[in-house]
Amino acid sequence: MAGWKNLDTLEAYRALAASEHRVDLREVLAGEAGAERVKKYCVPMACGLAYNYASKQVDEEILGMLAALAEESELAGKFEELYNGAMINTGEKRLVLHHLTRGQLGDPVVSDGVDKRAFYTGEQAKIAEFAAKVHAGEICNAAGEKFTTVVQIGIGGSDLGPRAMYIALENWARANDCLLMDAKFISNVDPDDAVSVLNTIDVAHTLFILVSKSGTTLETLTNEAFVKNALTEAGLDPSCHMIAVTSETSPLASSSDYLAAFFMDDYIGGRYSSTSAVGGAVLSLAFGSDVFDRFLCGAAEADKLAALADPMKNPAMLDALIGVYERNILGYESTAVLPYAQALARFPAHLQQADMESNGKSVNRFGEPVDYKTGPVLFGEPGTNGQHSFYQLLHQGKDIVPLQFIGFRENQTGIDVDIQGSTSQKKLGANVAAQIVAFACGKEDDNLNKNFDGGRPSSIIIGDQLTPESLGSLLAHFENKIMFQGFLWNLNSFDQEGVQLGKVLAKRVLAHETDGALREYADMLGI
Amino acid sequence: MAGWKNLDTLEAYRALAASEHRVDLREVLAGEAGAERVKKYCVPMACGLAYNYASKQVDEEILGMLAALAEESELAGKFEELYNGAMINTGEKRLVLHHLTRGQLGDPVVSDGVDKRAFYTGEQAKIAEFAAKVHAGEICNAAGEKFTTVVQIGIGGSDLGPRAMYIALENWARANDCLLMDAKFISNVDPDDAVSVLNTIDVAHTLFILVSKSGTTLETLTNEAFVKNALTEAGLDPSCHMIAVTSETSPLASSSDYLAAFFMDDYIGGRYSSTSAVGGAVLSLAFGSDVFDRFLCGAAEADKLAALADPMKNPAMLDALIGVYERNILGYESTAVLPYAQALARFPAHLQQADMESNGKSVNRFGEPVDYKTGPVLFGEPGTNGQHSFYQLLHQGKDIVPLQFIGFRENQTGIDVDIQGSTSQKKLGANVAAQIVAFACGKEDDNLNKNFDGGRPSSIIIGDQLTPESLGSLLAHFENKIMFQGFLWNLNSFDQEGVQLGKVLAKRVLAHETDGALREYADMLGI
Repeated sequence: MAGWKNLDTLEAYRALAASEHRVDLREVLAGEAGAERVKKYCVPMACGLAYNYASKQVDEEILGMLAALAEESELAGKFEELYNGAMINTGEKRLVLHHLTRGQLGDPVVSDGVDKRAFYTGEQAKIAEFAAKVHAGEICNAAGEKFTTVVQIGIGGSDLGPRAMYIALENWARANDCLLMDAKFISNVDPDDAVSVLNTIDVAHTLFILVSKSGTTLETLTNEAFVKNALTEAGLDPSCHMIAVTSETSPLASSSDYLAAFFMDDYIGGRYSSTSAVGGAVLSLAFGSDVFDRFLCGAAEADKLAALADPMKNPAMLDALIGVYERNILGYESTAVLPYAQALARFPAHLQQADMESNGKSVNRFGEPVDYKTGPVLFGEPGTNGQHSFYQLLHQGKDIVPLQFIGFRENQTGIDVDIQGSTSQKKLGANVAAQIVAFACGKEDDNLNKNFDGGRPSSIIIGDQLTPESLGSLLAHFENKIMFQGFLWNLNSFDQEGVQLGKVLAKRVLAHETDGALREYADMLGI
Repeated sequence: MAGWKNLDTLEAYRALAASEHRVDLREVLAGEAGAERVKKYCVPMACGLAYNYASKQVDEEILGMLAALAEESELAGKFEELYNGAMINTGEKRLVLHHLTRGQLGDPVVSDGVDKRAFYTGEQAKIAEFAAKVHAGEICNAAGEKFTTVVQIGIGGSDLGPRAMYIALENWARANDCLLMDAKFISNVDPDDAVSVLNTIDVAHTLFILVSKSGTTLETLTNEAFVKNALTEAGLDPSCHMIAVTSETSPLASSSDYLAAFFMDDYIGGRYSSTSAVGGAVLSLAFGSDVFDRFLCGAAEADKLAALADPMKNPAMLDALIGVYERNILGYESTAVLPYAQALARFPAHLQQADMESNGKSVNRFGEPVDYKTGPVLFGEPGTNGQHSFYQLLHQGKDIVPLQFIGFRENQTGIDVDIQGSTSQKKLGANVAAQIVAFACGKEDDNLNKNFDGGRPSSIIIGDQLTPESLGSLLAHFENKIMFQGFLWNLNSFDQEGVQLGKVLAKRVLAHETDGALREYADMLGI
């Protein structure tokens, strides 16, 4: 059994905190030694990706201390416990099994007599069979016509991850003749969200996926009612247009309101559910289950690397350690995720949930307050768009914001245009390379308004192309990074008690059981 | 002439910094006194909006000190100088005239013999005439058919603001029978961005707007080539499908490549250009010029309030002052913008540019380094979506993040559904009311994992409905808030030198004129 200790009680952390040694990026990246560093500070990731940390403020001395921290913190042992089925989510007394949706890293995990890997793959097989029938027209609308559109109704983890993954692969799928159905998403309880989506689809040819683990999510049930109204008004039977993704114990599981129900369980947190039936149904319907399988394979490969004990061979662990160094030793407050791929437009929004909901906490896994910073604010937009937006602050603002770039050598569609001697894809790559060096090395100017201090750290994940495999690898990398950071901070990264109070108060407002300030706010909002 | 001084040299600021007086939100919001505070701490904004700051950590004492700061910093006088045509953008030696696109607050501003208000309104009249002809089918495609879609090609300020405004009004326009053309946007140099948009439109019925003030923006010219290829391949004449929005001196201005050209000038920064021809062309084509006029009226009304010297009657000035108090005295590092309206989905991304590019700086307007924090990191997503994502960190994370909520009493489409005794719109409003109180007041629990400390500040802008007028008012509020914060921090909020270095290095990469680390990064990215 690994020992769960607060970060600031670890000797390796104390050594790190006591060290005054710092790395000046302008020095270490200068000249040909800088080029060598760029080559050397690079760890292979799964599916042809690589994690390059040459522009992070680390060197052999700091990496050595981080490796000692990884060892003392027993990161590899804790992950092993997790994937072998220990009750890592202590607050909710749950196992943490999302890795099992894409592979088996250790022992079979049996819970209530069920082999969980078999359960998850079984659901995926059911989804694959269902999707194939939809694509073949065997499951079709009342007029015998094929469904052409799929709409996911869900919020939080039932929305952000699957939506980001769909957007990430939509162009790739179109270019590779496997965009089998268009996908749309309804999430917000704002009625205009559902109205907006319903305005742009033909409900007669649309299959809706209701996604709620508990079957009680306010937003999702409300939006289901919206959709049922729309179907009924169009003279259609809602139960012939809807499927459910839920837990076996939910009220949705056995309802005749749905064509079919596919299952997840309490051991997969919403923000980690993209590789479960939550992502599986919509992605298998949109792209075919073989594409979803490739996505799972990519994630499984990344998980295997995450199981290695040596952080220099484990990119997720190394990324986590450097992030903790930046947050707790260097004192940086937020992190920007900057994919140079328009297809990853919503990937930062998904990571925002995955990271901030997992590690945005102030008490450790035993419910005791911690005296050190935990998860940072995370934000981001695709490059080059961000360059024409908030990069001003990143380059010259008062706070240093660590950056996570992502870039690919090839675009997804294979279509490009050559202008002034280079393709758009080359321009995109040139920009991300230039930004890394501009942030790290800066440029002196006597006019301080045009001066760049440099010393602003970044890492980059580089791959050939954003494919189902590399997307799965990328997703799992960040999931595992977040998990390792939770281990380092001694948090329970798998509950989210911070979302409860708002729900309780909102119910009170709707029941008109309020007084004081809350009543007044509710009045102002016309409740 | 106003005196431009660093924030930390002002007596009022020193008094604020020396004061140990703090407001405990749990105390001031308790009981019926809390309800009174919610009523009282509310300033009318333009077009029926109100800025409520009852859950900010201020009271009469702090507000008094902030008012003194506003006076000593001569905020009203500086704004007056700005709108009367002083050279406020000192770095680039430019006037700052975006307010003139929507109204005339002071003296006529004449530059090079041109009345600038007349120039901007003249361009808007030309756009209105052009849009009317497109809508009437007088300007049409080669087959004599109407254009049905408009695509804006631009990046940064030519993209984020116009796109956010279009999304904000799309459902409203559909519900009010004034969605005259669908609008799409191409921004990123990533070739897949253009391919993706071109895949979803019928180019034969599409009008493209090329937006670049200089006429030299890399991304925009590259994407123009993409679009021209697509038009040519479809057997169409690109010059009959494209218009330009640019400056009169740009190479695009007199090109026969375009059906028409509409002008802005150097006195309108990209991030402040939504009310100029940059937003005017696409929004007038999409919704009709009368809708765009209503949007301008809303912004003009907000500007009038911003001209008032008393911060207690000037919501933008008050918002700015409270923000500086939070950033410089209370030490909060980032800000979240949380609109409870799906239509404002991209409004935070626009504000991210407007705010971070304006005030993410470390030198004052005289090029001297400042010793205090300036613009914060800004991020946000619509509620209730965010509640199921990053709110965990906002409620229970180690850092306090000030929050800017936005909410409306009515939705835009008028379509809603009643579930469990309330409409979706009421549920939306109940949630934002509940969140404000949950953040401010918290809830004690012996299980610290379920404990909420409270004391987390927020403000809310509340309105009846998101309409062209209220959207204009909302936009101008934030533009003016950012301007006032720039005045307080003694920054030039209207240049963006921080974006230059990356551009220079990217050109070098494309020309293969690199060595060391930059060459190595470029190699890795396949350049």
